[in-house]
Formats: sequence, C-alpha cells, structure tokens
Amino acid sequence: MSVRESRRAGRRRGTDAPRSGCPVAGALDVVGDRWTLLIVRDLFRGKARFGDFLTSSERITPNILAGGLDRLERWGLVSTVPYSQHPPRVEYHLTPRGRELAPVVRAMAAWGRAQFPS
Amino acid sequence: MSVRESRRAGRRRGTDAPRSGCPVAGALDVVGDRWTLLIVRDLFRGKARFGDFLTSSERITPNILAGGLDRLERWGLVSTVPYSQHPPRVEYHLTPRGRELAPVVRAMAAWGRAQFPS
Repeated sequence: MSVRESRRAGRRRGTDAPRSGCPVAGALDVVGDRWTLLIVRDLFRGKARFGDFLTSSERITPNILAGGLDRLERWGLVSTVPYSQHPPRVEYHLTPRGRELAPVVRAMAAWGRAQFPS
Repeated sequence: MSVRESRRAGRRRGTDAPRSGCPVAGALDVVGDRWTLLIVRDLFRGKARFGDFLTSSERITPNILAGGLDRLERWGLVSTVPYSQHPPRVEYHLTPRGRELAPVVRAMAAWGRAQFPS
C-alpha cells in the first residue's frame, strides 16, 4: 500500500488523518517521532532482521521496534521477505519510497554532528 | 544555553540524556516529535508571537506550543524578545543555531511533497 493509499485508508478508519496539506506536517505524520528515523537509519546500514535492530546502541525496545516496523510497512516504506518458515521470520528492507528518506536522515545527521561535536 | 550545555545539564538532572553518540539520534532527541519542526517551520515563515503559531492549520494546542517553545529555548534554538511589559509578552526568534535546521525542514518538505503530491 502506498503512503497515499495508507493515508486514505487511515482517513476512512479515522486514523492517520493528515493534520494539514503542508508537506512538512505530512512527513512528520509519518516519521515525526523519536524512533522511526533510527529504524530507517539502521535499514540504510543494512540491518534487516528483527534482532539486528535490537543491538543498536539506543536500545530500542522490542515493542517500539515492532510497532515502528509495522507502521513503516503500512506506509509502504519497508517491505518484508521471509527467510524462515518454521518459525516464520521475515527480513525488512527499505522500498524505493523508503530509500527516498536518505536526504532527511542525512540532514538530521549533519545537524546532529554540528550540534554535538564529538 | 547551548544544545551541548543544555544536554550536559539535562544529563546531570537525569533528563534529556542522549540515547547514543549517533548524530541522527542526537538530532531526534531534540526535534524528533510530531510538533517541534512545525514550530520551527512557522518561525522560518516569520511567526513570532504565541498567538501566531496557534493559527497554523495543524491547530497546535497552547499546551504543546508552550512546551515546544520552552524546549527550543532551553536547547538554544530559539531566543525571546519582550514586546510588552504589561502584560509581559515575548516574541520568539530562531537563533543562528536554530536557523541551521533549515536543511532538515527542507528535506522533510521535499520528501513530504514527493509522498503526498497535491
């Protein structure tokens, strides 16, 4: 489902309704929280399996991770590929639409580096 | 107080402690929520007085706005200038450090525009 279809479905359900027509607000409706762009960062770094994300130094909890991956998939930014049948397990990959977040993650990283020089 | 000093003070208080040394996580610690970058967007558009921000189409609540402006000031991204003594009232302006968020807001806007073509 595309972001747009997901949003439309959400509007029908009364959830995920956009706050305004502003593209900044639209982007924040999807990735405006403390965790989603960190999951996206990890996906860009090649992390793919659920346990991989849990090892990142921010120590995301399994609950938040599961919710974040589910939402990213619902928005069409992440796709899943099974890698085990018993038990059923999937890998997560950015879709082309998800990869378009690269400039957002890069801008965040550049600003963070300027603010918190190590 | 600079972002770094604020963060250091926060760490002493046990709040605002960074989640990791990653600059993306650092940026999201500051602006990673649904509202902060919308306030920053409005500041870039020249909004300065409390009531100005309340008129934006996302209809931010006074509570969230007050908290957001307070946090932005605490991080050194916004400064205040009094414009009335009785009653005491201030205008909010981006500091040079706050204006460095322009590429982040622009990247969000570009992604949002690509995802939600009007």
